[in-house]
Amino acid sequence: MKLNIALLAGDGIGPEVIDQAVKVSNAVAKKFNHEIVWTSGITGAAAIDAVGEPYPDATHEICMAADAVLFGAIGHPRFDNDPKATVRPEQGLLKMRQKLGLFANVRPTFTFPSLIDNSPLKRERIEGTDLIILRELTGGIYFGERGRKDDGNTAFDTCTYTRAEIQRLAKLGFEMAMTRSKKLCCVDKANVLESSRLWRETVQDMEKDYPEVEVSYEFVDAVAMRLVQWPSSYDVLITENLFGDILTDEASVISGSMGLMPSASIGVHTSLFEPIHGSYPQAAGKDIANPLATVLSAAMMFEDAFGLKEEAELIRAVVNKSLAEGMVTEDLSGKNKAYKTSEVGDWLAANI
Amino acid sequence: MKLNIALLAGDGIGPEVIDQAVKVSNAVAKKFNHEIVWTSGITGAAAIDAVGEPYPDATHEICMAADAVLFGAIGHPRFDNDPKATVRPEQGLLKMRQKLGLFANVRPTFTFPSLIDNSPLKRERIEGTDLIILRELTGGIYFGERGRKDDGNTAFDTCTYTRAEIQRLAKLGFEMAMTRSKKLCCVDKANVLESSRLWRETVQDMEKDYPEVEVSYEFVDAVAMRLVQWPSSYDVLITENLFGDILTDEASVISGSMGLMPSASIGVHTSLFEPIHGSYPQAAGKDIANPLATVLSAAMMFEDAFGLKEEAELIRAVVNKSLAEGMVTEDLSGKNKAYKTSEVGDWLAANI
Ligand SMILES: CC(C)[C@H](C(=O)O)[C@@H](O)C(=O)O
Ligand SMILES: CC(C)[C@H](C(=O)O)[C@@H](O)C(=O)O
Repeated sequence: MKLNIALLAGDGIGPEVIDQAVKVSNAVAKKFNHEIVWTSGITGAAAIDAVGEPYPDATHEICMAADAVLFGAIGHPRFDNDPKATVRPEQGLLKMRQKLGLFANVRPTFTFPSLIDNSPLKRERIEGTDLIILRELTGGIYFGERGRKDDGNTAFDTCTYTRAEIQRLAKLGFEMAMTRSKKLCCVDKANVLESSRLWRETVQDMEKDYPEVEVSYEFVDAVAMRLVQWPSSYDVLITENLFGDILTDEASVISGSMGLMPSASIGVHTSLFEPIHGSYPQAAGKDIANPLATVLSAAMMFEDAFGLKEEAELIRAVVNKSLAEGMVTEDLSGKNKAYKTSEVGDWLAANI
Repeated sequence: MKLNIALLAGDGIGPEVIDQAVKVSNAVAKKFNHEIVWTSGITGAAAIDAVGEPYPDATHEICMAADAVLFGAIGHPRFDNDPKATVRPEQGLLKMRQKLGLFANVRPTFTFPSLIDNSPLKRERIEGTDLIILRELTGGIYFGERGRKDDGNTAFDTCTYTRAEIQRLAKLGFEMAMTRSKKLCCVDKANVLESSRLWRETVQDMEKDYPEVEVSYEFVDAVAMRLVQWPSSYDVLITENLFGDILTDEASVISGSMGLMPSASIGVHTSLFEPIHGSYPQAAGKDIANPLATVLSAAMMFEDAFGLKEEAELIRAVVNKSLAEGMVTEDLSGKNKAYKTSEVGDWLAANI
């Protein structure tokens, strides 16, 4: 099979972790007789520096022409404390999501038995956790009208949702629940927000089409609590963009395996796969960042974008092997020897 | 001293826990020669049932005439799954916040040494945690314009903030930081939201007036993570209404002492004190709910509303004694005998 993949390394540790995912993907392709055509594009602070734009048209064209996008991370601290900066790396991310129609961010949170003790939570709280948060990614307050009034002394942002947007995301959630334990939780703030009431109403209307799925409705503040208290009580959660931003990050730290969590963004035009961690600028260029989340994102790509399940399983098995054998970066090595990012990548590729 | 206190018991377990706080407060008043005048008002589902309105004018007048308000909890599940209900208990809460000008919700999260093992977090993560989240309570998306368009198929909510609203909240935060460890964290989403950029800009402008306070700026998603990872690294956090809703609830479960956490809402017209837990309808009427959060809210009231620090300290000491001696409700009793809500209240009052 010929796999056309756009490669967006991005900022910070992005290029380093992406390199390892490429090595592993190439090893898999070789073993299973696929041909991967990688096409690189620039994004984020790197693209601002090069062409003054965090998601240049040329990069967009590369993504549109690809069957899938493998993405590193973007963001640079020099933009963070400058509220007046007009061009920011994150704008590139948002523009990319919008232009590629990446409407659903799929964020699994699961545990690796060997890493459970890294969790800030007690073992008995986290064991067995295997949940997916489906975050709506191209609507809501991220993309609504915003601005200033009264000489800049008043600022506003608008959260807007249409029934169709909600249905599109919820449909994925119902379908995902059907392949799992048939439990779906709709997370909203329907006791306050009109947009949340539309979410709840829309999902309630869809329940009849999925009679086997048991749907619950919870307020976002309650979910923020229960995710820490009893994460294993959740299966599939669906939610709007901003709540999803907060809850997926919260969920990411509970497993103790944050540096390993992959994600997929399902789109109208293509799908994108990326580690959930950020650009981690302090570690950039040091060859110390953990590449496993990006490697596991590549596994998701093989499975979800190309239907290559066996290939995905092989990557996951080799990742598990690296953990079991202590072939890990410093964030996971504890008192044992820490390997470099590139060493871990080489080892994984060699073990495919 | 004469203390005029409005008493709003509310729904669910509200009346039961409020009763215990009244007993304890009366015992304290007797001991220190204060006269408390309690005036009760109805709110929430109870008020909807009685007069069709969750925050009736009569109740508002009681609060306006009082020096402080002691509040139980409101909310009833029969309203939760009905997105079309036009009168909801929570509206009463929001109306009350707005009409009393309760602009700052003060939510401490601290640990009780004897309860640390109840935390879902590991002991070493949570030990020493003593943070305060200051949540803006009368602005933002809670009170912005909202509605439907396109025959009800599009819903919108607006988040608006003015510089003055932000300054008022931030000022409290800076002042609170000055009495503590002089660390202030401004939580926003300035990489996406215009209102957050106004928050960040406004707080940055205020830094020069508090040269001793070390201010950090963090994105809400990052805070949702770090609260679980290293809660003890925080001291005072300030944030807007919706982020505060989510983060205060998240913070409440990390200490293992959720049933004990009090809160204050500082207002233009009066201040309100309430437990952070909800109306917990499953336990209503059973005399099993933990009254300590409400009792500790009364302690905050003595100290913050009336400047009666010694009285507050005595209440806290007696609460600590009840914990040490196992005079606790079933949520805390473990394998030992569980006492009733009213028994705990009687014991506390007797030990004042
Ligand atoms: C960088 C930022 C704009 C982005 C978001 O808020 O969506 C990030 O936090 C994420 O979750 O991918
Ligand atoms: C009941 C609800 C409207 C309320 C809020 O969101 O403010 C509650 O969650 C709270 O935090 O007091």
